[in-house]
Order: sequence, then C-alpha cells, then structure tokens
Amino acid sequence: MTRVAVVGATGYAGAELVRILAGHPEVELSMLTSRQHSGVRFSDVYPAMTGRVDHKCETYSIDSISGKADFVFIALPHKLPMSLVPDLVNRGKRVVDLSADFRFLDPKLYEVHYQTHTAPELLKKSVYGLPEIYGERIKDAVIIGNPGCYPTSVLLPLIPLIHEDLIDTDTLIADSKSGASGAGRALSLSTHYCEVNGSFKAYKVAIHRHNPEMDDILTRETQKPVHITFVPHLVPMTRGMQTTLYTRLKKLVDLETLYDCFQNFYKNRPFIRIRTDGKPADTLHVKGTNFCDIGLHLDMENKRLILTSAIDNLVKGAAGQAVQNMNIMLGLDETAGLTAVPFPL
Amino acid sequence: MTRVAVVGATGYAGAELVRILAGHPEVELSMLTSRQHSGVRFSDVYPAMTGRVDHKCETYSIDSISGKADFVFIALPHKLPMSLVPDLVNRGKRVVDLSADFRFLDPKLYEVHYQTHTAPELLKKSVYGLPEIYGERIKDAVIIGNPGCYPTSVLLPLIPLIHEDLIDTDTLIADSKSGASGAGRALSLSTHYCEVNGSFKAYKVAIHRHNPEMDDILTRETQKPVHITFVPHLVPMTRGMQTTLYTRLKKLVDLETLYDCFQNFYKNRPFIRIRTDGKPADTLHVKGTNFCDIGLHLDMENKRLILTSAIDNLVKGAAGQAVQNMNIMLGLDETAGLTAVPFPL
Amino acid sequence: MTRVAVVGATGYAGAELVRILAGHPEVELSMLTSRQHSGVRFSDVYPAMTGRVDHKCETYSIDSISGKADFVFIALPHKLPMSLVPDLVNRGKRVVDLSADFRFLDPKLYEVHYQTHTAPELLKKSVYGLPEIYGERIKDAVIIGNPGCYPTSVLLPLIPLIHEDLIDTDTLIADSKSGASGAGRALSLSTHYCEVNGSFKAYKVAIHRHNPEMDDILTRETQKPVHITFVPHLVPMTRGMQTTLYTRLKKLVDLETLYDCFQNFYKNRPFIRIRTDGKPADTLHVKGTNFCDIGLHLDMENKRLILTSAIDNLVKGAAGQAVQNMNIMLGLDETAGLTAVPFPL
Amino acid sequence: MTRVAVVGATGYAGAELVRILAGHPEVELSMLTSRQHSGVRFSDVYPAMTGRVDHKCETYSIDSISGKADFVFIALPHKLPMSLVPDLVNRGKRVVDLSADFRFLDPKLYEVHYQTHTAPELLKKSVYGLPEIYGERIKDAVIIGNPGCYPTSVLLPLIPLIHEDLIDTDTLIADSKSGASGAGRALSLSTHYCEVNGSFKAYKVAIHRHNPEMDDILTRETQKPVHITFVPHLVPMTRGMQTTLYTRLKKLVDLETLYDCFQNFYKNRPFIRIRTDGKPADTLHVKGTNFCDIGLHLDMENKRLILTSAIDNLVKGAAGQAVQNMNIMLGLDETAGLTAVPFPL
Repeated sequence: MTRVAVVGATGYAGAELVRILAGHPEVELSMLTSRQHSGVRFSDVYPAMTGRVDHKCETYSIDSISGKADFVFIALPHKLPMSLVPDLVNRGKRVVDLSADFRFLDPKLYEVHYQTHTAPELLKKSVYGLPEIYGERIKDAVIIGNPGCYPTSVLLPLIPLIHEDLIDTDTLIADSKSGASGAGRALSLSTHYCEVNGSFKAYKVAIHRHNPEMDDILTRETQKPVHITFVPHLVPMTRGMQTTLYTRLKKLVDLETLYDCFQNFYKNRPFIRIRTDGKPADTLHVKGTNFCDIGLHLDMENKRLILTSAIDNLVKGAAGQAVQNMNIMLGLDETAGLTAVPFPL
Repeated sequence: MTRVAVVGATGYAGAELVRILAGHPEVELSMLTSRQHSGVRFSDVYPAMTGRVDHKCETYSIDSISGKADFVFIALPHKLPMSLVPDLVNRGKRVVDLSADFRFLDPKLYEVHYQTHTAPELLKKSVYGLPEIYGERIKDAVIIGNPGCYPTSVLLPLIPLIHEDLIDTDTLIADSKSGASGAGRALSLSTHYCEVNGSFKAYKVAIHRHNPEMDDILTRETQKPVHITFVPHLVPMTRGMQTTLYTRLKKLVDLETLYDCFQNFYKNRPFIRIRTDGKPADTLHVKGTNFCDIGLHLDMENKRLILTSAIDNLVKGAAGQAVQNMNIMLGLDETAGLTAVPFPL
Repeated sequence: MTRVAVVGATGYAGAELVRILAGHPEVELSMLTSRQHSGVRFSDVYPAMTGRVDHKCETYSIDSISGKADFVFIALPHKLPMSLVPDLVNRGKRVVDLSADFRFLDPKLYEVHYQTHTAPELLKKSVYGLPEIYGERIKDAVIIGNPGCYPTSVLLPLIPLIHEDLIDTDTLIADSKSGASGAGRALSLSTHYCEVNGSFKAYKVAIHRHNPEMDDILTRETQKPVHITFVPHLVPMTRGMQTTLYTRLKKLVDLETLYDCFQNFYKNRPFIRIRTDGKPADTLHVKGTNFCDIGLHLDMENKRLILTSAIDNLVKGAAGQAVQNMNIMLGLDETAGLTAVPFPL
Repeated sequence: MTRVAVVGATGYAGAELVRILAGHPEVELSMLTSRQHSGVRFSDVYPAMTGRVDHKCETYSIDSISGKADFVFIALPHKLPMSLVPDLVNRGKRVVDLSADFRFLDPKLYEVHYQTHTAPELLKKSVYGLPEIYGERIKDAVIIGNPGCYPTSVLLPLIPLIHEDLIDTDTLIADSKSGASGAGRALSLSTHYCEVNGSFKAYKVAIHRHNPEMDDILTRETQKPVHITFVPHLVPMTRGMQTTLYTRLKKLVDLETLYDCFQNFYKNRPFIRIRTDGKPADTLHVKGTNFCDIGLHLDMENKRLILTSAIDNLVKGAAGQAVQNMNIMLGLDETAGLTAVPFPL
C-alpha cells in the first residue's frame, strides 16, 4: 500500500487532505507534519478526529519524508514548496503541491505575482492538476501543481466552450464567492467571526493572484492571450465556492445544444455534474464532496451565456482534487477515497 | 403632526417601516394594518417592539385609512396597491407604495412582467422614488413608486457614469447578492433555515422582475434602449445587499477623476458614501442604515470600471428610502428619522 | 444483501437515512417512499444526491414494502408508524421506527403525551434503541423504537453515573441546545431563516415531549421514579446538539475516578468518546458523525458534576443511531456504514 | 453639554459606547482613545461610522483626558483602569469603568480571581452599576464598576426572587449562552470564523471569572454566602446573550403571583420587560437595545422556577448599561440615548 505524507497537515487544506486520506481504501497515511504542532497528536489539534487520526505531528526534513512516504502532498504556503520539491523528486518521490509554486507554465508570470522561482526547471515539468482537462498528462507526472480553488471553479465551466469556439474570450467575467475557510486557519481580522457574520463583500477586486493563474490556462487553451476580469467575494459560511461567469456567445445556440456540448466534453468524468433542469449551481449541493456542479443560463437579449458553478473550496478546490490527482498518478480508480454520499443538508 | 398609516405592517418591509416611523420625530404612526394579524398587537407579532409599538393591527378599508391618516405607506404584494391607491388619492392622501405597481413609466412594460395595470392614468403621474436622482419631482408627487432593492443598488452607482457619458451602456452587467430578508416573511422552502444556511446560489438568472425595472430607468437616463444583464444571488445572512457592477469605460480615466465625478454628482446627498480608499463596499457597514456605500475599482487591462455597492435591503432598499421620500414630500429634512448612528458590528 | 426501505425518505431524518444507507457496504437501498414527492427522483428533491441516489420516490403500501424490502426504517410523524408496523411485523419484517410510537415502556405514558396507542401489544415487545445500553436486547429485537435526539444526548452521559450510584437522581437538570434541522423540513415561522439567524432562545420549557421519554428510561435504570428538569433551546446552526447536565454527587470523587467510570462503562463502544483533557464537548467535533462526545467538569464547591455532551442530532440523534441498531440486528459490524472520517471543520 | 471621553474606543465594547454616545442628545463625544489606532480616524477603523464619527483616535494621558472630558468611560482590559482611575478622580472626573477592576466589594475576592488591586481604597467607594438595583447609589457615585455581561443577565432575574425570599439560594444554576462579540475584537482561534460557525460549546465550565462577581452580589443581596453554579457557552451569532436559570421554590406559587412580584419590583424600570405570555426570552428581541427580557416558567413536579433572560451583550451587557449609569449620574433621563426602536429582525 502506498505510504503518503501530508506536509503542512494542520492548516485547513492539510487537515482536509488528512480527512480524505485517512478514509482512502488504497493508501496509508504514514506521516503528518506541522511545525506549529510538532509532537502533538493530530486529534488534539482537530478533536473531531479523535480515535480516527491520532498520529503525532512531526517537523519535516527531506530525510524523514523520504524514509516514511512514497507519495507526498505539500500544503504549505507558497515559496516553501519550491525549496522542498527538488530534493523529493531527486529521491524518487511523486508530489502534489497545493501551493501556487508549480501551477504556472512560465516562471516569469509566477515571478511577477509571487517571487523569484527557485526551481524553474521543475516548473517546466510540472503538470497543472485539473484532471478533467489534463488527465492524460497527470498519469505520468512527477509534480502536480494543484489548481487554486477559484481557477477550478472558473476553468471547468469555460474550457468546454473555448474548445467548441462558442464564446468570445476577450470579454470574460468571473464573479466568484467563497466561504471563509478559503482564507485558511491563520488568524486575521478579516476572518474574525464578528467581521464575517452578516457581512458580504468583494476583496482584491481585479488584483487577486488567482487571476493570472486563470489567464495562464485560458491562454493556453485559447491559444491567444486572454485576460479574464475576476472579482472574488467573501460569503458568511464555512465551506463552498460559487462562481457566476458572464460570456458572450459567438453565435446563437439553444440550451439543448449547450447541454450536449458539456455532457460530451465531460463524458465519464465522475465529478462534473451538469444541471439540465435550468437551476443554478448551489454550494449546499456539493458541500463535503469533490463535485463541480455547473448550471447554464441564457440571456438571449444580450447574446450572453451565463454559467454558474459550485464546488467545495476545500475538496474539489483543494484537497479532493489533490487526491483525485494522486489516484490518477497511481493508476487507481479516479474516485477512490472520494465516494462518500453527499449530505442532504 | 402628520398622521401616517402603514398598510401591510407585519411583513418584513412593513415592520421595518413601523420601526423607522415609530422613532420619527415629526410624524405620528396612527394606523397599522394587517389582514393576518387583525386585532393583535403589533408587539405580539414582533415581541422586540414590546413597550415601543403596542398598536393593535387592523384590517383596512378606504374609509378607515382616510379617517386615520394623512399619509399612507403601502407594503402589500403587487396588484393590491393599484386597486387601493386611486381611492386614496381621490380622498387627498399622498402615498408611497413599496410594490412594483407604480414604478414603471410604461404600463405595457409593467403588464409584460406583472399583470394588467388597473390604474394606468395614475401610473403616469407617479414618480420613481429614488431621491438622489428624482428628488425635485418627488417634492410635489402624490404617488411614489418606491424602488426595488436590487434596482436601488444598481442604479445609484450607474447613473452618475451615464450622465457623464463615461461608460458603454450596451454591455452592463450587475451581479447582486441579497440577504434572506429580501424574500419576506412568507414561508417557503427556499427561505427555510437549513436550506439557506451554508448555501450560496444564484436564482432567477437573467429573468428577475427587477431587471425590466432597471432597464426602464436606465433607458430613461441614457435616452436609448438599455438592457442590463442581471443575476441575483441569495446570501446566508438576514440583512444586506451587495452588487458588483461590470462596466466598460468609453475612455481611460483614473480613479481620482472618477471619485470627483461621484462626489460632485452626489454632493450634499446625505445617504451616499463614496469609498475613496480603494476598498469595496461591505454590507456590514450599512446594516440598519439608509446609506448606500459605493466602491470604485479599475481593471485597466480590460478597460473596465468595476463598481461595488452595499445597502441594507430593508432600509435603503425599502423602508428607509420610503421614509426618505416622505420626508421630501412633506418638506421635512430628508434625513428625519434616519439618523441613527450605524452599528460597529 | 439485505434490502432496506426508508418509509418517509424526504424529511430531514429520512434523507439522512438515505445518505447513510446509500453508502452502506452491506445493505441495498431498495425502496424510498414519499407521499409528497411520489414519482419524483430523490435527487430532484435533494440535488446534492444527483448521480448517487437517483431512485424514484413512491407512495407506500404494506404490499409494496413487503415485496421490496427485508428491513424497514420508518421516518414518518408519530401516529402513522403504529398503524403500519403491525402488518410489517406480521409479514416477517424487522423495523426501526424513528418516531415516538415504540419508545415507551408503558402505553399509558405514551398516551398522556401523544395519543391513544393502537398497537400496545407490540409496544411491549419493542426495544428502546440505545445500543450502548440495550445492545444485547437489540440483537434479537423485531421492533426498535429509535430514541429521540434529546434523550440520546441526555441518557448517554447519565446512565453510567446512575449505574455506579454516583449521583442524586432527584435533582437532575438537562439544558439542551439543538440546531434547526431538528425541527425538520416542514415549514414554520420558527424555522424561517430570518427568525433563526441571530436568535437564541429556549422553547417548550419543561414541557417538551422528550421529557417523559427521558424520565421513562431514567426511571427504568434507577429503579425509582425520576423526573428530570429539561429545557431545550434552538441554536442558529443546521446540525448539532449540545446538552449540559447538572448533577449532584452523592460522594466526592475526582475526575480520574470519573474518567475511569466512563471508560469502563463504554469500553469497546465505538461511538462514545470521553474527553479526558478537561475540555467541553463541541458540536463541531461530531458534525456528520455518529459519535457522542462527553466532557466532565467538577464544581466542587457545590458538589456538582457537570457533564457536557455533543452529538449530530441527525446522525447519533436519529439516522445514524437507527443504522447502528440495524447493524446490530443483522449481526453486522456495529459501525458498518458509519465510519467516515469526521470533517475537521 | 457634558464632554465625554471613551478610553479604549476601538474594541467592541468601546465602539458600541461610541455608537451610543455619538447619538446621545445631551452629551458631546469629545475624545476617543486607542493605542493601536492612534492618529487614525475612528471611521477608518469602523467604516460603518463614516460621516458620523470621524474623530481621530488619540493615545491617552491623564492630562489629555482631563483637559478634554468631564466624564470618562474606560473600556480597557482589566488592570489598566485601576492605574488610571485614581488620577482621574483626583482631577474631579466621574468614571464608568467597563472592566472588572471596580466591580467587587472586597479587594480580596478581586485579587483571588484577577491580580493585586492597586487602588483598594477607591474600590470601596465605587458602586456596582446595575441601575435597576443600585440606582439610588449610582446617582452620587464617582466611580461605577460596570457589571459584566453574564452577571447582568443572571442578577436581574434572580434579585427580585431573593428579595421576596421565594427561592433557595443554595442550589442556583445559571446556564448562559453568548454571541461571539463577547470575546472582543482581539484575534484568537476560538473566535476565528470557521471555528465558531456550526459550533456550539461550553467553555470555562464553573471557572469563569464572572462567577465570583455574581457570587459577590448575590451574597450581598441574600446576606449569606451564595455560590451559584455557572456555565457559559458560545453561540454562533454576533450579538446576544441568553441565560436559563434553574431555581428551587421555597413554597409553591403560581405564575400570576410571580408576574406580580417582578412587575412590582421593576415598576417604572424602563429597560426590564417581563414576558407574561409564557414565552421564553429571545436574543432576537433585544438585539441592539438596552432591554433585558425575562421569561418565567414553572416545573411544578420538581418545584422549580425556571427563568430565561435575554440581553444584547454589548448594550445592556456593556455599553448601554454604562450610558444608563452615566445618565443617572448626570441627572438626565435614564433612557437618554437609549431609545431607538428595536429592529424587527
């Protein structure tokens, strides 16, 4: 059984990885690292896990990871992963990194929005871990740059339309809304309970770092430069991300044609659900799951196709997608460990 | 002291009217009507009001309203007001109607989206009660069609830009988000606690009835046909509405110029607050108040101006704006009854 | 594979049963009934389930249930189950009923608080489905009266203390707090979003129907009449129930002794977690799980032992416990279908 | 017009003081202090206040306070106020302190639960600022120790019963629940949004510092030692505190008698509302107000009187009560600045 490590296990994305991997039928969760909680049982950090994940958290070193794990998930803040991954790869490990460090095609683009890239040669080899789009390349990848939550919710609805050349890519707009867990477990006034409850607001309007990440992939898929207008918002809830996409149709099509387009494109993709009842995607329907629900809506008078997508930002937007990538890399069923029946509420 | 009636006092908009009017220094709340709670004290329907508003609710008739009130607020579902207003006007009453019945310029447009209009001659005389835009005409109006909450949050940021001819009105998009109180007190699964909590979703995508209301006013202001793309969403919170507007600039301008434009346009308008610190409007900052906060944000690469607005849907989006209209009609200070200091949280 | 039916599948407890049973490795979910949604796919009622539970809901008859299922869960309002169960038992079915109809030892007590019991002879044969206490009798039971959510959260902490004769049973107090899902999916003003959000309140103070249910079991265990003081409260959250119990110690004991008492009593009981770190039980730690967490706290100056318990009202308080009972009845592992790793948040 | 200072204006209690005082008709808010935000406009810390409270925050010194204010509110963490108050009193200022420093009768009791008291002689002169009980002494007080939020919600329902000798004071239990604003604006994991949302839990069970404060006053009123069992809980909401009190009646009385007792005791006390409809107190009904609602409920079989109280923890539990105390001290109407009509939701 493959032994897997979660490096950075006590942040929200890391803890969600632990949840999924501890219930995964085909891998063994062999190492949890946490600098802040070193020596402490994971279940003392997250008492929900008592009796289920009582591993002690450790600090990591290349040696300790290499000795204890065959496969490595990294859930550290960006910059740290790129200092760690080269050694892991040299030791023959395969890695899914949840930070931005291995998501970009072009080190320059990364450097404009983050910092100097210290492993640019590996960046070229890494694969953007959106399995519904890049599944074939993920199979043999050594390093996966696991997509950001916002890009996942934006790209999955757009790419089929781009492939079918149905929409104008010069006027794309993504209006996204995320639950507070997306901001992580680090304390800040903006995620203090009383500042979030009863508040709805945009933030980092048109300047969020996930914007160039989307642009990079959209440009690759479109094969000409794309710059999407992107505005994220914070919703008073814990989990869930909903994106409303505004596109302009190149030609008039009806909903049936669009349903066909999406259903063909995502045929046999187990985590994409196209709503064909005309209803918009709802975060409540994907909570705790790896699904991405997509709704389609026409505003014919303006020749617009409006799309709504919903994911759980911690699952399909982070840890679930990371495990989906691992499954593909290990030749397992893509859904292994991700098959829990959704909660009705 | 002017005696005022609230017809339909026990719905959420009606109750908010009662709250504001009971604390208004220059009018007397003389009549509360409620079919459902006839004979019951208002404070038994809303125990929060115990000791402050203990009036008995009554059923209404033209005679009873005429005898007890000089000024009438109607907070009934659309269709009922247009059957009631002609008689009230004949008896010399002035009316602010919170339904859609007197909001449209053109009966035809109303009839497409609602039903046959039974008082079309009065519709022509009514004034759309957006005081920052139509204040002069409101002064002498007999009937005010009080704006919908979504149109208020959309029109206040757009109209200055239209007047200055700064934006293209063919590609307008409004992505709005509302707290659950906007759906009123009537029971439905969509406002059942467990269906709203933890859920974020769009609804009535591009088919909401506030869309033609916005179009009607935008067309009037632009003097050519405008059809905005409008998508409302439901937020898990009680009060508050946030709208993000996507516009395309006709020419490049900087933020300072835009701040000047807005500050000039809304000079001496006490309820408009332009954020000049670059931060987006936040519903938490306007909760319980009649303010409309507006933020401005440039996406220069796409030549877009993005606007964020925040109102309390029950105050500036309904009852507060209704009282503001009354104040203007009665020659009172526009802010009378609406001056409470905002809550910090 | 045992075929199981859920009668009343579209209420919240029924839907939670469906969730658990659809993921259960050893039974087949063969029938879902719903009068209100007859002919409709379950996933159209709960879109979260799309692709996972697409069964059509049907109306039920004794014949249809008997033909399609070997084991029956009833999640109907009380009174209906007692009209249904006799025929099912006659046809050789085993039943877990989630209503109050088969919970009481004594028909008289049931009749005082509910209505005339129409199957009193079966009531005598039914077993109160609290597996940690009555596991042995559950194995061979034909009818299980599945405990109420409040009684579950009250009885599990108290019974070990009663068995050890550590507490005075004349002065018991249970102060319980429940999320809104406990009130079910039926619409009412008291579960309307805006009436729950921001509200915390008691209800049915000392007159809730779960009070006699607790008394009945406490009396059985104590072997003298017990009447606990019980006050339920409504919390603005979807899932979760927390009970704080105030007991008077018969003799002074220290926490270590108490921890030993609980750990011995619940040895090998997989769903009871005793917190030995001094921290109180928290609903967040049991969300979506079948765990009952219990905290112990001394107020020595008053010679009191205070206990805190936390369950998910829909799982250990309803559907999870029902499945746990089924597992025991069918000779399966008690935890089958109930082993998902808890969510960290 | 009396000039008032708020020392520590940017914490939640301080900001709520600012809100109330900025709208107070008879005092002038002349100074706001904040170490953290010195030099910053209050409305930049709380943008809700833009246009209403644009004062610059300053650091404080005895001289600056003395020069700018006649009356001083202190909303600093305990320990700081007792170092500040002696000098202020020497300069002839009157002070309401919202910390614990001046609440206790006995410095020893304070020192057991807090630290060495550095102004014990002033402690003797200070008055516990519960106006409904100590109004006469408050009139002439120089220093008010403003009550804690929990003690306010516990003492107001109990004291009338103690005065009438209706209840046993040896077996008192208070089970209290508070919104998250009670924990203040300082960041901590326990008030991080995702840790509070969906969570209900007790904390500091029987060891909260408000417990000795309650005991001190209950002992004074009972004239024999009282030690109440007190358990606070955290509710996922911003504002509001609900306490359920369990008392044992010394003799059987009916509800009518109890209503009379409370209504007589609190006759002409504008902020106490006794619910005589049998319903429990609800935090939603007091949100944003200085009311304390009290419900009475009998559990005759156990000879218990159960009381429910609800306050807004930031208003009657802190800033509102502080202003009520000031009003009394200055000879103003007790309700000045506290008369806003409650919100219906």
